[in-house]
Amino acid sequence: MVILGLDPGLARTGFGAIDTEREEQYLRCGCLTTPPSLGTAERLQIIGHDLATLAAEIKPELAVVETVFFGNNSKTAMLTAETRGVLLYILREHNIPVHSLTPLQIKSRLTGYGQADKHQVQHVVVRRLNLSAPPQPDDAADALAAALSWAGEPISLRS
Amino acid sequence: MVILGLDPGLARTGFGAIDTEREEQYLRCGCLTTPPSLGTAERLQIIGHDLATLAAEIKPELAVVETVFFGNNSKTAMLTAETRGVLLYILREHNIPVHSLTPLQIKSRLTGYGQADKHQVQHVVVRRLNLSAPPQPDDAADALAAALSWAGEPISLRS
Repeated sequence: MVILGLDPGLARTGFGAIDTEREEQYLRCGCLTTPPSLGTAERLQIIGHDLATLAAEIKPELAVVETVFFGNNSKTAMLTAETRGVLLYILREHNIPVHSLTPLQIKSRLTGYGQADKHQVQHVVVRRLNLSAPPQPDDAADALAAALSWAGEPISLRS
Repeated sequence: MVILGLDPGLARTGFGAIDTEREEQYLRCGCLTTPPSLGTAERLQIIGHDLATLAAEIKPELAVVETVFFGNNSKTAMLTAETRGVLLYILREHNIPVHSLTPLQIKSRLTGYGQADKHQVQHVVVRRLNLSAPPQPDDAADALAAALSWAGEPISLRS
């Protein structure tokens, strides 16, 4: 099954795709980016179009989209949530079922430990996908983690 | 100029349209609604499709979309922001320029007073549009207020 993970962001939305039926599960990862010089509506349109293109290429059968963490910066959280709305809309338009997971749920499912740090998550992503190095940038790694968290059993950090 | 005001919400998005070039400026108002029984992505799709239909009928030359007020309920605020993202995306897809205003800005522009209460805002909406009664539900009235706030001078509450 081809699973697409998405880590929403207006400036940079991370994406990561895996195919759970292949021995080498890693398919592709990267970021959909928009320039800050454009208006919000225009940036959302770019992200929507880029996701539509990506979905047509990758043909995911399922998508896992991170929910928005509400930290100290409510302005950023709002823009991230607006971006997430467009991602969900486009996925639905392409008949791709969507699962929403919090960052804590993704870490917990992936590593067996919800408070795992960035390096621990990357470690599991690298090991599960037989990568030679952690995917860059972080948003792409987080998106792969989201996709992987839906597939298979967690790898214990202690193993 | 036909102006479409929008008050975003996942369960209920208020809309209100005016035509500033007609003597009777009021065109139409109401709500785009989605049932809570459906998933978020499906509800966002419904709102997106309904807005597209509305835009094709009303042919707005400009849209004013309320920003999301971040109150005590961050879960609701997130869903509202996701809805707002889809609204902006669809408007942009229809080449309709978008202006974003906070509730405070809308009240201030409309009544000259940013802390105006619901009844004061409705009073100005009724007066400016020669309505026989305040539009219902409140989301529709708020959407008309958003549209009106972009057109013409504020009516002082004291006049």
